[in-house]
Amino acid sequence: MIDLMLSSLKKTAFLSKIRTFLNGLKLLNSSTSEAKVLYDFIAEAGNNELTVKEGETVTITNQNIGGGWIEAQNSRGEVGLVPEDYIEIIVEYLDLFTVFCLSLSFVAQQAISCASNGNDPWSVWNADPSGGSSNNWASNPEGTQTGKSAADPWGSVSQGHPQAYQGPGAEDDEWDDEWDDMKSTGGYAESESGDGGALQRGGTHASSMKISLNKFPGFSKSGPEIYLLCKQLAKGKDKLTIYTGEVGPVWSYPEAQLDCIVADPKKGSKMYGLKSYIEYQITPNTTNRPVNHRYKHFDWLYERLLDKFGSAIPIPSLPDKQVTGRFEEEFIKMRMERLQGWMTRMCRHPVVSSSDVFQLFLTYKDEKDWKMGKRKAEKDETVGVMIFSTIEPEAHDLELAEVDQKCEQFSRFTKAMDDGVKEILTVGNEHWKRCTGPLPKEYQRIGKAFQNLSSVFTSSGYQGESTLTDAMTAAGKTYEEIAQMVAEQPKKDLHFLMETNNEYKGLLGCFPDTIGVHKAAIDKVKEADKLVAASKITPQDKVTMAKRVSTMSYALQAEMNHFHSNRIYDYNRVMQQYLEEQVKFYETVQALLLTVYPSKFKPVLFIALLPGRQLHSA
Amino acid sequence: MIDLMLSSLKKTAFLSKIRTFLNGLKLLNSSTSEAKVLYDFIAEAGNNELTVKEGETVTITNQNIGGGWIEAQNSRGEVGLVPEDYIEIIVEYLDLFTVFCLSLSFVAQQAISCASNGNDPWSVWNADPSGGSSNNWASNPEGTQTGKSAADPWGSVSQGHPQAYQGPGAEDDEWDDEWDDMKSTGGYAESESGDGGALQRGGTHASSMKISLNKFPGFSKSGPEIYLLCKQLAKGKDKLTIYTGEVGPVWSYPEAQLDCIVADPKKGSKMYGLKSYIEYQITPNTTNRPVNHRYKHFDWLYERLLDKFGSAIPIPSLPDKQVTGRFEEEFIKMRMERLQGWMTRMCRHPVVSSSDVFQLFLTYKDEKDWKMGKRKAEKDETVGVMIFSTIEPEAHDLELAEVDQKCEQFSRFTKAMDDGVKEILTVGNEHWKRCTGPLPKEYQRIGKAFQNLSSVFTSSGYQGESTLTDAMTAAGKTYEEIAQMVAEQPKKDLHFLMETNNEYKGLLGCFPDTIGVHKAAIDKVKEADKLVAASKITPQDKVTMAKRVSTMSYALQAEMNHFHSNRIYDYNRVMQQYLEEQVKFYETVQALLLTVYPSKFKPVLFIALLPGRQLHSA
Repeated sequence: MIDLMLSSLKKTAFLSKIRTFLNGLKLLNSSTSEAKVLYDFIAEAGNNELTVKEGETVTITNQNIGGGWIEAQNSRGEVGLVPEDYIEIIVEYLDLFTVFCLSLSFVAQQAISCASNGNDPWSVWNADPSGGSSNNWASNPEGTQTGKSAADPWGSVSQGHPQAYQGPGAEDDEWDDEWDDMKSTGGYAESESGDGGALQRGGTHASSMKISLNKFPGFSKSGPEIYLLCKQLAKGKDKLTIYTGEVGPVWSYPEAQLDCIVADPKKGSKMYGLKSYIEYQITPNTTNRPVNHRYKHFDWLYERLLDKFGSAIPIPSLPDKQVTGRFEEEFIKMRMERLQGWMTRMCRHPVVSSSDVFQLFLTYKDEKDWKMGKRKAEKDETVGVMIFSTIEPEAHDLELAEVDQKCEQFSRFTKAMDDGVKEILTVGNEHWKRCTGPLPKEYQRIGKAFQNLSSVFTSSGYQGESTLTDAMTAAGKTYEEIAQMVAEQPKKDLHFLMETNNEYKGLLGCFPDTIGVHKAAIDKVKEADKLVAASKITPQDKVTMAKRVSTMSYALQAEMNHFHSNRIYDYNRVMQQYLEEQVKFYETVQALLLTVYPSKFKPVLFIALLPGRQLHSA
Repeated sequence: MIDLMLSSLKKTAFLSKIRTFLNGLKLLNSSTSEAKVLYDFIAEAGNNELTVKEGETVTITNQNIGGGWIEAQNSRGEVGLVPEDYIEIIVEYLDLFTVFCLSLSFVAQQAISCASNGNDPWSVWNADPSGGSSNNWASNPEGTQTGKSAADPWGSVSQGHPQAYQGPGAEDDEWDDEWDDMKSTGGYAESESGDGGALQRGGTHASSMKISLNKFPGFSKSGPEIYLLCKQLAKGKDKLTIYTGEVGPVWSYPEAQLDCIVADPKKGSKMYGLKSYIEYQITPNTTNRPVNHRYKHFDWLYERLLDKFGSAIPIPSLPDKQVTGRFEEEFIKMRMERLQGWMTRMCRHPVVSSSDVFQLFLTYKDEKDWKMGKRKAEKDETVGVMIFSTIEPEAHDLELAEVDQKCEQFSRFTKAMDDGVKEILTVGNEHWKRCTGPLPKEYQRIGKAFQNLSSVFTSSGYQGESTLTDAMTAAGKTYEEIAQMVAEQPKKDLHFLMETNNEYKGLLGCFPDTIGVHKAAIDKVKEADKLVAASKITPQDKVTMAKRVSTMSYALQAEMNHFHSNRIYDYNRVMQQYLEEQVKFYETVQALLLTVYPSKFKPVLFIALLPGRQLHSA
């Protein structure tokens, strides 16, 4: 029954129901809903846009504009386009959620029977009052967010304000938004697997739903149970051995570190140029042979990795789709940079990087090879908690108490680190705004004020003050240069600090899910005695469960050790780069100022300037 | 008739009327008025203060609190003290002004008859839309502002916002607010001249009124006429010769530059300790013998100088009384610094510094000497425009066209410079707020965020990351130090830039009055032909007037040349100091950062950190 539930056929049917249901809600919604404006947006002339103020309420008049835009009407009756990320649609969110849960429950109860005990892995960190809100996603009616992202338990610190830090911003690139487009004319066709469009779309959402399953009472422990009580473990080449290193349990690391370069984004087109997209070139250091991928292929890879490893290894989300501006080139650059960061992190992971699906993505030889690999990967059944069935620790089994304590410790640490990372993002965000906004404007005004006073002085008609006015003009120009430096500095230092912390925020946001799976397993083992007493499981099952939760703990410890080593490396590097650029900044400003003082200003004696002194020489 | 009008007796009677009238208005006012809150004020706990927000309207419940405080009630019925400078009392200001003018007119018409032609010297720069408002003074119900200050034609850029730049702020020092206190028990008694209290107070306001006379149609040319048509000019030692230097007409400068040091403020008391005051020690470089003076004596000196020289020489106002905080010591320091600035400027002026009254102030031998000198100075009749009667240019008379053109040129220049100075004050003010407020707070938060993340890292339990966490903690502390440096920096650089520009703003604010006297004289000479034709003056009078307006022009040119030389010196100095401190700042921050990077961060190889590497050595 459980295995059936996991089969892609059932999954597809299940998701199809949910999707139909959601679409219904969406339609209902799009015709009548109001929205609250989250950020000020100033319309650009001639673009049919609508200027809105933070806090204003607007009526959605057309939600199907696309490209990240929504048509809205303000209280004065003016109608125009507004970026959908700037508004939050006011729906009966709780109702939507409730109905969604009920719908899930209904389908779920047909698939498995499982006692609900309310022990929801999502409650792990939800006590944090600053987190837990999914408000940021409520404004996304497209529902294209993955389960991981959509449930981001800490909200979106830096993603929350599109005007602030997020890089230079860009248009939502519609090239990637073509999941329903089935009429592919070559290249990487969307429907190579032979399934229909609906199935393809379903496939995309499958993992998202799989993760969702973990979130609702009644499903929370279905995951761990599948593994804890399964009959047969994987064998042979699929085995992932966990060794014992100095720091404790560790994954098996390859001798050579896999790496890749994401570069050379190129605009491609299909349907005789009607649809265009961006293709990136990815070159692994193993083959040194570039392969091409679109964002949607990255997304496909992400879904596969999440499906396969998500229960044991936090798989960070891909960089989001964004609607924050109109600078295509800057946006592509930013997305490429983030895809590079994501790929680097995946390459660094010994388990992920050595997996078939990841290797396929990096090293497929031709289209046929890619299509075959894709099909195979999509049929992989060792997904979800079953990944633990492939793990084999080379150490004695752990006591449940120790397993529990380790899990709690990791939970505490990742929560604390998440808070710390959020703090840096919050202050970095403000600092970014100040350094690119009011501060350089002020330096510029100081510069202009000096220059202005200098030209007033020049107009005095008084003799012999050109030394002063030249120097003042130079000082003024220097402050204008400083203004520019200040404005550009965040791109040099803060950018990398923010990107790294943003990446860690995403990564840490995956831990509640991963740790939740472990907590659920631990809870199940804790009540094993009761289950035996109630004849729900056999005494042998109980022994198996204890052994398997120990295996899970080794996997978690190996993963934490992997996380720590990466963290130390990343933060060492980012702090160094930040400080190095800061030192350079202060050095450069000082050097700039030295071109004016003391070089340009000459010391003047008061007595020498007195007009009376000149009397004697007259 | 005119001479009579100027006599102190008439003046006193005249002022007495005005004062009674004003007091009536004030009383009327104090019992019922509402006030608009100009700046946010946050009450200190336990001080019976009231928190108010900018723009809020409060009702004045008691205006006689003193010490710069007013009792007010907000719309929620809460009552508490608010600094009087933070609110603007809403009176029918226009009505007050109208009645005041009418009252003046009435008294004036009894004294002199003079055709009103609407040519008001105050219209000189009033076309400037950014200036001309006396709103800033409307909130001063005490009416103790001098005419010069009260008529500040550009508003009060830096004085306008007590929370912003103005130095550290202080209590209104009530010690100086004792003009009505007649029961002096020794030291510098208030009523040495033998006049009653009312006269003393009247005397204080006399110059203010004298200046006011210039401001209202019908009076505008009474000033210049007194001189242009007077029968006898001063003789002998009182003569002020104007020489011709390389730059044009110049005052006669002394061989040695007079200077003085204002220092050592001491709290004194009288009335058996019931009243206390601050006494400053002033030491001139000529005698090197210190004399003591209270603020009110500076004020007395200011009034004498304004009376005597104001028509020819802009006499800047003394530093204002302020209500901006509660740090007595800081306030005294700030006032001393500004009194020093004022005294230095007066010492530098060849005409002012060599005057009897100024010399008396600096070098009186004992109390008797002081009292006698005071009495003599107060009886000086060579005041107002009559100062021109003591001026003797050593050059040929100027054509009226040239006089006119020079006057226009100076008017344009001083107006332009005033705009430039205001601009610097405005941006400096904002910069001051940012540098002492949000910016260091942000650096502090960055510092705290680094340290916080560092301690989270320390809690990881992972081995061998102390190099990173130590370095991150050090970096965090460094940013906290930088925060403090940033916050303290304005006191080192911006302070002097602001003080100098503030001083110049005050000085430039005197030019409309001074130039107005010249314009009025020029206008009178321009209509001399008409006046001759109408038999109002004789042809000889016309010749005399032309000669005298030429003398006035020489005085104005000498004064402008004096102003220019001082300006070049002052701005050279202030720019140098500003830039020097800025260079030092960037140098110090850089040095601070270098104590962290690269010294504390060690380059780390990713491969060396991998937990798998440690496996092999295990």
